[in-house]
Amino acid sequence: MRTLHHLALSAKSRKIRIVLGEKRLEAHLKAEQIWDRRPEFLALNPAGEVPVLVEDDGTTIAHATAISEYLEEMHPSPALMPPDPAGRAEVRRLVSWFDEKFEAEVTDLLVGEKVMKRFLGRGEPSSEAIRAGMSNISIHLDYIGWLAERRSWLAGEVFSLADITAAAHLSCVDYLGDVPWDRNPEARTWYARVKSRPSFRPLLADHITGLQPPKHYADLDF
Amino acid sequence: MRTLHHLALSAKSRKIRIVLGEKRLEAHLKAEQIWDRRPEFLALNPAGEVPVLVEDDGTTIAHATAISEYLEEMHPSPALMPPDPAGRAEVRRLVSWFDEKFEAEVTDLLVGEKVMKRFLGRGEPSSEAIRAGMSNISIHLDYIGWLAERRSWLAGEVFSLADITAAAHLSCVDYLGDVPWDRNPEARTWYARVKSRPSFRPLLADHITGLQPPKHYADLDF
Repeated sequence: MRTLHHLALSAKSRKIRIVLGEKRLEAHLKAEQIWDRRPEFLALNPAGEVPVLVEDDGTTIAHATAISEYLEEMHPSPALMPPDPAGRAEVRRLVSWFDEKFEAEVTDLLVGEKVMKRFLGRGEPSSEAIRAGMSNISIHLDYIGWLAERRSWLAGEVFSLADITAAAHLSCVDYLGDVPWDRNPEARTWYARVKSRPSFRPLLADHITGLQPPKHYADLDF
Repeated sequence: MRTLHHLALSAKSRKIRIVLGEKRLEAHLKAEQIWDRRPEFLALNPAGEVPVLVEDDGTTIAHATAISEYLEEMHPSPALMPPDPAGRAEVRRLVSWFDEKFEAEVTDLLVGEKVMKRFLGRGEPSSEAIRAGMSNISIHLDYIGWLAERRSWLAGEVFSLADITAAAHLSCVDYLGDVPWDRNPEARTWYARVKSRPSFRPLLADHITGLQPPKHYADLDF
């Protein structure tokens, strides 16, 4: 069976887990403590980051974008991008929005400071960074709400990798109880729709030792 | 004619200019002073970043990855990725390596500090950042040299988006004269091969007011 090297609170790893679930592909999950910088893992991905997908025949795909595009090409059904190039470009624009912009402005400042920093041995969380993350997440929730009000799903009429990427990041922040859901009802309704998909269920069952999620985290009717 | 909103020393804009050149697609270049945050430009790309491609019919594609994948789908010949999914994944891994890792560890610290910071009104360049960028570029040059020694081009046997992305970033740093070319002969030879392609020529003719490139910048036999 294929192996996905991942971390429970890595948003990009969660994205690939949802993609695998949507495409009904099984994978053995292997937690990689990237802060250990194991030589065997660095040989799989010199960037030292998760996710990394290893196929049965040893084919190794590193980096979330490379993996999601690879899975889309290898297993095109169900499609997670629309068929037209402009529609696909809108999906990819939003994927980058969440994997780069949301990650830098929210995920890194909240999950990064509160959880990853501890594992990486980089000291105490910065309260300034956390304040910035909490302020930024409101702006991003409003953007999600704005998109969800105008479209069936974030990138257009079909459920896509854009929804998966956004929800993967939010789910990590939600595990810490840091998403101000009351702020934007449209964003909340959109997230509830993603959260109720069977592909999302394994993420809601995640439990990190010593770090309990809030009660609403696994509640589909939060 | 299509329009590319760009900046001369934006590596991701340069990448799209090379892709357009390789595919022999004409585009009107429009410099966008992103630090002005013009509402008309933010309507094209809410992230406020270049490059943004606008087609004749008004179709707007924002973000370098979305644009390069879009151009590859719309104009598949000449191909800038190999046909097999695993080979394409290796191209995409390296594209992300340079657009994310090299950008954060080198481009942002050198071009960002020395040039963009001034325009953005964010004060003087940080000498600490510049020192870090100069230290990091050596490691990246060695990685490029390592790949170039083992493969015809960075991602494998064919010239690809990986070579274009790496060269686009290096060309920005080279405009400042900050690439220690003597360090790695394989990396230098690989860059000379990319630099001599006709698609690269317009970049070598770039001149930014008040900022002259070093003599070797446009020299194909540097």
